[in-house]
Amino acid sequence: MNRNPTSLPDVLAPLARIVPVYAPGAEREDGYDLWLRYRRLGDGAAAALAKAASRIVIPRTPSIAMLAAAAELHLALASMCGEAVTVTHDVADGAIVLAVDPSLAREGYRISAATEGKRVTRIAGGSDIGTLYGAFAWLRAVLMGGDPAAIEAASAPKVGLRFLNHWDNLDRTIERGYAGQSIWDWWKLPDVKDRRYLDYARAAASIGINAVSVNNVSSRPEILLPDWIAKVRALADIFRPYGIRIFLAARFSAPKELGFLGTADPLDPAVRAWWKAKAGEIYAAIPDFGGFVVKANSEGQPGPHDYGRDHADGANMLAEALGSRGLVMWRAFVYSQHDPEDRHKQAYTDFKRLDGKFAPNVIVQVKNGAIDFQPREPFHPMFGAMPATPLAFEVQITKEYLGFATHLAYLGTMYEEALQADTFAQGPGSIVAKVADGSLHGHQLSAMAGVANVGVDRNWCGSHFDQANWYAFGRLAWDPHASARDIAREWVLQTFTHDPAAVDAIVGMMMDSREAVVRYMMPLGLHHLFDTGHHHGPGPWVDNLARPEWNPAYYHRADRNGIGFDRSPSGSNAVAQYAAPLAHAWSDPATTPDNFLLWFHHLPWTYRTASGKTLWEAMVAAYDQGVAEAHGLAERWKKLEGAIDPRRYAETSQLLTVQEREAKWWRDASIAYFRELNGLEMPRGAAAPPLTVEQYRSIVFHYAPGRGG
Amino acid sequence: MNRNPTSLPDVLAPLARIVPVYAPGAEREDGYDLWLRYRRLGDGAAAALAKAASRIVIPRTPSIAMLAAAAELHLALASMCGEAVTVTHDVADGAIVLAVDPSLAREGYRISAATEGKRVTRIAGGSDIGTLYGAFAWLRAVLMGGDPAAIEAASAPKVGLRFLNHWDNLDRTIERGYAGQSIWDWWKLPDVKDRRYLDYARAAASIGINAVSVNNVSSRPEILLPDWIAKVRALADIFRPYGIRIFLAARFSAPKELGFLGTADPLDPAVRAWWKAKAGEIYAAIPDFGGFVVKANSEGQPGPHDYGRDHADGANMLAEALGSRGLVMWRAFVYSQHDPEDRHKQAYTDFKRLDGKFAPNVIVQVKNGAIDFQPREPFHPMFGAMPATPLAFEVQITKEYLGFATHLAYLGTMYEEALQADTFAQGPGSIVAKVADGSLHGHQLSAMAGVANVGVDRNWCGSHFDQANWYAFGRLAWDPHASARDIAREWVLQTFTHDPAAVDAIVGMMMDSREAVVRYMMPLGLHHLFDTGHHHGPGPWVDNLARPEWNPAYYHRADRNGIGFDRSPSGSNAVAQYAAPLAHAWSDPATTPDNFLLWFHHLPWTYRTASGKTLWEAMVAAYDQGVAEAHGLAERWKKLEGAIDPRRYAETSQLLTVQEREAKWWRDASIAYFRELNGLEMPRGAAAPPLTVEQYRSIVFHYAPGRGG
Repeated sequence: MNRNPTSLPDVLAPLARIVPVYAPGAEREDGYDLWLRYRRLGDGAAAALAKAASRIVIPRTPSIAMLAAAAELHLALASMCGEAVTVTHDVADGAIVLAVDPSLAREGYRISAATEGKRVTRIAGGSDIGTLYGAFAWLRAVLMGGDPAAIEAASAPKVGLRFLNHWDNLDRTIERGYAGQSIWDWWKLPDVKDRRYLDYARAAASIGINAVSVNNVSSRPEILLPDWIAKVRALADIFRPYGIRIFLAARFSAPKELGFLGTADPLDPAVRAWWKAKAGEIYAAIPDFGGFVVKANSEGQPGPHDYGRDHADGANMLAEALGSRGLVMWRAFVYSQHDPEDRHKQAYTDFKRLDGKFAPNVIVQVKNGAIDFQPREPFHPMFGAMPATPLAFEVQITKEYLGFATHLAYLGTMYEEALQADTFAQGPGSIVAKVADGSLHGHQLSAMAGVANVGVDRNWCGSHFDQANWYAFGRLAWDPHASARDIAREWVLQTFTHDPAAVDAIVGMMMDSREAVVRYMMPLGLHHLFDTGHHHGPGPWVDNLARPEWNPAYYHRADRNGIGFDRSPSGSNAVAQYAAPLAHAWSDPATTPDNFLLWFHHLPWTYRTASGKTLWEAMVAAYDQGVAEAHGLAERWKKLEGAIDPRRYAETSQLLTVQEREAKWWRDASIAYFRELNGLEMPRGAAAPPLTVEQYRSIVFHYAPGRGG
Repeated sequence: MNRNPTSLPDVLAPLARIVPVYAPGAEREDGYDLWLRYRRLGDGAAAALAKAASRIVIPRTPSIAMLAAAAELHLALASMCGEAVTVTHDVADGAIVLAVDPSLAREGYRISAATEGKRVTRIAGGSDIGTLYGAFAWLRAVLMGGDPAAIEAASAPKVGLRFLNHWDNLDRTIERGYAGQSIWDWWKLPDVKDRRYLDYARAAASIGINAVSVNNVSSRPEILLPDWIAKVRALADIFRPYGIRIFLAARFSAPKELGFLGTADPLDPAVRAWWKAKAGEIYAAIPDFGGFVVKANSEGQPGPHDYGRDHADGANMLAEALGSRGLVMWRAFVYSQHDPEDRHKQAYTDFKRLDGKFAPNVIVQVKNGAIDFQPREPFHPMFGAMPATPLAFEVQITKEYLGFATHLAYLGTMYEEALQADTFAQGPGSIVAKVADGSLHGHQLSAMAGVANVGVDRNWCGSHFDQANWYAFGRLAWDPHASARDIAREWVLQTFTHDPAAVDAIVGMMMDSREAVVRYMMPLGLHHLFDTGHHHGPGPWVDNLARPEWNPAYYHRADRNGIGFDRSPSGSNAVAQYAAPLAHAWSDPATTPDNFLLWFHHLPWTYRTASGKTLWEAMVAAYDQGVAEAHGLAERWKKLEGAIDPRRYAETSQLLTVQEREAKWWRDASIAYFRELNGLEMPRGAAAPPLTVEQYRSIVFHYAPGRGG
């Protein structure tokens, strides 16, 4: 909020209490700039920056990506200093010199003080894209408050494919999107090049994203028709200077559904030829096309099983069609419509036996947990269990199961928890991060995929804080060993403020937020207790859906006597899919962490937890703590009034009010339901829910977002 | 583009050819500010403005609307001058004094130089809303380049209800919306008060809009449930300071569909009581609730006919429920699913006999023409024919039938054409504008309704030029006798530039644009030849839809011998619904204007038009002229490069490219089809279509926007 020329006159305060009016200029703090928030600096800082970056020097024959790096620096410096700098080929004191240094990793960079006759800052990349990443890293350091004359850094990504997955439908609805419709305006493409495409590419590249799939994995085949390929090409052309390759979600039945063939059998020569020709057609339009991401034989999507083939048959057919230039990202999120086996176990069972059978340009993309992006899950047992297959680590950035875009839940901690989990596959220290970066089993290919939370909402993500989850995904995909707290701090410094107390306060809120959500929604390892369809709000009572594993009652298994899903050897024995130390520990409730207690065990309500409380007392206490923490988030934010620009302050306050109310609702509805089953009194000091279970059940949400088209 | 600190360095030009990058700051010209474009002035102009508006003076006990007027002036002056002015109660030289003068019309205003001891500009309204309108009028004059020290004006609206109708569904899709999803983020309402709601209210109030219906007339009943009324209330609270009353589209079957009653019969006492209670519930939340807009017994919507009642029974029941505080806007866009009569005639036939039977708080809302918002229609025969009933004049601002948001078509000329049409109802000079303003038959109530073209697209309307249609609607609703050209000029001066040559050029493009669309789509009175469902592109061959009047073939009736719909006495005799002079003239092709020739007559291809050309020659010539004009729009725009900021220049260029291509497609597909019927050679000098009819028929548009949820 530097140089805000005015404030809202006090006399207008009665209006401001009713309508979202702010001081002139303050309404521009709408979040659109994300963490690339190049605000005019104070005069002293602007002068220092202008001196340390007196010009931008590019090679004599710059690539387009090199020009993109220069354009970013030019934009940032003009915005922060208030006057433009030259972009030139001639070095002078204080120049920012952009260069390529082939001795560096291809996507890596080095920022160093150099004296090429003059005192300059040299930003060198292993390729022009590395240079672009270096330029963004230099700007990040500046935005975080670093001395622009003294920035030195070197880095290279640890993961090869840093992959955003858009679940965007072709009609611009978004499955599990809570930030408005898709930013891809397919109707106006390819002619109209919305500035959003560029700003998206800039933001994604700034955190190292280098691959994007633009359409929903629950896909429609039309995206593969020529007029749609032309639309995709227009996006690819804009993304290319930013080092971003486009992937498409391929519908396995496309050759049949589009009417070209009578079958989509992956072993049928005509099918193989069709996909090969299709890949060639796409490559002709998009030479750096990344490949296909495929959701097959899952939740109604077609796949190789429809023809008695297995996942490797399907994946390898597409891999052959793409050739070595492209990748197949074959998703492991599959469970049978007919198999009565614990859903937790099915993907592992399906894929484990295929390890080693996938073509070299296939990556199997595995969700962080075995169920479905729950607020907390143990890591997926496939991690560490597929030594011969490169696995992508997939997380949701959009918050399907964590309060949509309404609740504050920083997911950096959730990603970190999964990445730091030890699989014990190669002994202690075999953490999931080493699967993600390929080092555990020495794979050349490595990938992290995040389901995007981006939409046309002005702030891109549905709320200001949800931007941090996009940011954290990118930073962890660059380095899956990084710290969620460090990333939160980076983000706050760039996005909100440099005020040390405010930074600490906001980082603290972020670090506590996801655990609060877990507590007020589903403590102690409970999972998937959401209301039907939209996944908004509690539905522990739901038991009427066609498939058993679609029902919350399937997951909590609560009755008069106890609660929890027995996945120990006495139950489904899903624990056996984990390495021995974990299988052993998680087989016994006494050695299972409280976090996963009811994930792995069915226990009596009177079970005595480590805290000394009974299970029922511990559960109610956890719900109460979650609600108290949600209340605390709102209170902590209130203390930041004045430290944050008024628009983002107000918009966040409104959401935190919703979060607190819905936290209470989650607690009360859940407890009311469980009490109806167990007949227990409320623990001493805990208030009984104000409504009956029937009343909670009767709460209906019409037209909830995120269900797609 | 004042004070743009930089331009894009030439060296970055190769990047700019690929991605939509502009000079730093220029990317902010995204159209969001609409015509309220308060850009920093040059130093001299800023000083003059600051002197002429040295402070804002408000009454000692200002209403909220008065504060809204002060806030708008404060925002504008701070933005244009670079420093804020005081808002105070104390007069000084150069003050802008906001006041209420009850001698003025309630919504009228007077801007005058005054000496209240000091030299001030006095902006007085007949009420605080009048003052707000005066403040916007003063700003409009400033933005148009007027001397801020010498602005004097007085005006009052000629139409009582200036009504925007949103066809926005509750899932945020928009029926016939081409600017992205609905700006109403129902999911986050009522808690989250998006700044867009305020900016929408400011823009609407600035052109005099005083009523808004927020949901689609093809309505869902849930909007009437308590949690939705709370959401609507949050919008009403933000709109109230801006003089905007909220209406709801009521689903006639709501009491039944929501499960409260077994019937929706308007004469059933329980139904009457239900609606009365519902109105009371809404009034309790929204004391200034405007009332209901109803689409009944039309296109599958429920209505009083379902119970053997007539439109007056239905409308009057709701009018009684609302009481005198509220209005029923009962739409006349009805045609029977079963009546084989010319659709053109049905609404008149249905409603004419009900004239005088409607309650005093019912307005019958009539589309500009009798069919459905075609690029050109003769005025609706109900205008002038319902002396005992106030009629609202309804137009579409969104361009369902004029190229969506892609084609440039300034609709001010279309509205003007209909408003200036003489009904002859009370003798010559009985123009439609006098029906709209109530003067023709001396009605107290008067209304103009426009189907909004607003969505979440950053520029609100899907394109920069489509903003002009929103603007023109508002200005014509304020004064339906105003000139479309004057309004275009106002808009260009506020929105684009003050450069006289550029202003003339842009106004010229706008004035020519709609006629070009008519020519390349459907010249000579042809109508409704759109492809099925999405109304994008030509579909003259379509004849397979269930209802005859859904088919283009129903409207053009072309065959080997001739073309056109005979609505003369030898045909459906729709002409008889017009006053005698028109009925007489339009019964004979020789005295029917070329514009309506095939609207009213079926003529042989060899018919000799006034120009001396045969009908076939004249038709091909019109198509060719339309294409040439579309090409001309693109060429004329190219000459404005540099006179327009680069972002809006580029975005408009891209759309004009599409328009030219699609103009050719319209011409070629139409001519190919008609030639297939008539077997005629192309007229000398005219090129034959490059594709076959079958090829044009095979063009399919997947996921076209605007079909709603």
